[in-house]
Amino acid sequence: SQKTINPNYSNRGMTLEEDINESNLYYLTNGIAVIHKKPTPVQIVSVDYPKRSAAVIKEAYFKQQSTTDYNGVYRGKYIDFEAKETKNKTSFPLQNFHEHQIEHMKAVVKQGGICFVLLRFTNSDEVFLLEAKHLFPYWDESIKGGRKSIPKKIIETIGYHVPIHLHPRIDYLKVIDHLYFNQ
Amino acid sequence: SQKTINPNYSNRGMTLEEDINESNLYYLTNGIAVIHKKPTPVQIVSVDYPKRSAAVIKEAYFKQQSTTDYNGVYRGKYIDFEAKETKNKTSFPLQNFHEHQIEHMKAVVKQGGICFVLLRFTNSDEVFLLEAKHLFPYWDESIKGGRKSIPKKIIETIGYHVPIHLHPRIDYLKVIDHLYFNQ
Ligand SMILES: [Mg+2]
Ligand SMILES: [Mg+2]
Repeated sequence: SQKTINPNYSNRGMTLEEDINESNLYYLTNGIAVIHKKPTPVQIVSVDYPKRSAAVIKEAYFKQQSTTDYNGVYRGKYIDFEAKETKNKTSFPLQNFHEHQIEHMKAVVKQGGICFVLLRFTNSDEVFLLEAKHLFPYWDESIKGGRKSIPKKIIETIGYHVPIHLHPRIDYLKVIDHLYFNQ
Repeated sequence: SQKTINPNYSNRGMTLEEDINESNLYYLTNGIAVIHKKPTPVQIVSVDYPKRSAAVIKEAYFKQQSTTDYNGVYRGKYIDFEAKETKNKTSFPLQNFHEHQIEHMKAVVKQGGICFVLLRFTNSDEVFLLEAKHLFPYWDESIKGGRKSIPKKIIETIGYHVPIHLHPRIDYLKVIDHLYFNQ
């Protein structure tokens, strides 16, 4: 894939999540797509119900998302993805993913949903879109004792460079247009 | 619509949410659809990070979902819905919905997603699927000062009786098959 990064728009200390949220808000506001991050799941242990005011959660724990973080609709199609970043320069570690996320992505692909991961190499500030179907063989290999990461050179070949703009910051639907809508 | 309820399978004190979760699990396990309830959104105010153990949320508040509660993929199509119940016998109160949920549903319909509400009349243990496009005129009318509920007689006409089974308990995809896949 070609480099499409404009250094003027480089990531100024924003997390991948913040950049994606900004992009989703851009898509939503402009009537392009309806894609949201799911709320962080929390295991609630104890709640106080003070008189005449809102319930207060007094003890709770972060749980792992049982699915991916983002989903929604674009041109009638179901969109589902997970976003991860790494400080590594030459490969993307697979332990960033969890078994149940991969299982969820496999189920989505079976249902004909558009499913992918957004991978950011923070050091070079590059974001790649990798279709879930290309992630699965590397994941399956890794849990069989194989390599625990995907070389960046391979991601550059089977993945797609995501254009970085001012708005939307991470324009991943451009890649989806190319892959699924011949545009 | 016809009555399809079998009293043997009537709701034995389960909430609508529990019944829908059971149905979604049935769909998931049988490879029929991938539809999940989104986690309850929580506003976290204070977190403790004890040494050598998991972070503990010490103060948090329930937030309102900014979208609907359920979404996912069925036969490649995006599915999005909200579920509500009422003890009323002759009409469904519209104040069960929130402005941002309606806005979200309108955006989903514009993107070509399949969007609806599941309405349970707890007293008669009947569940109706009402397409979002049929809900909007009643909502819009109600915020203009019009009627604040939809008469049950109208829901019986423009909505669809959802079959209640042992598994899946609320087989709403049967109605979707009929409406969107000519089955
Ligand atoms: Mg995540
Ligand atoms: Mg709700």
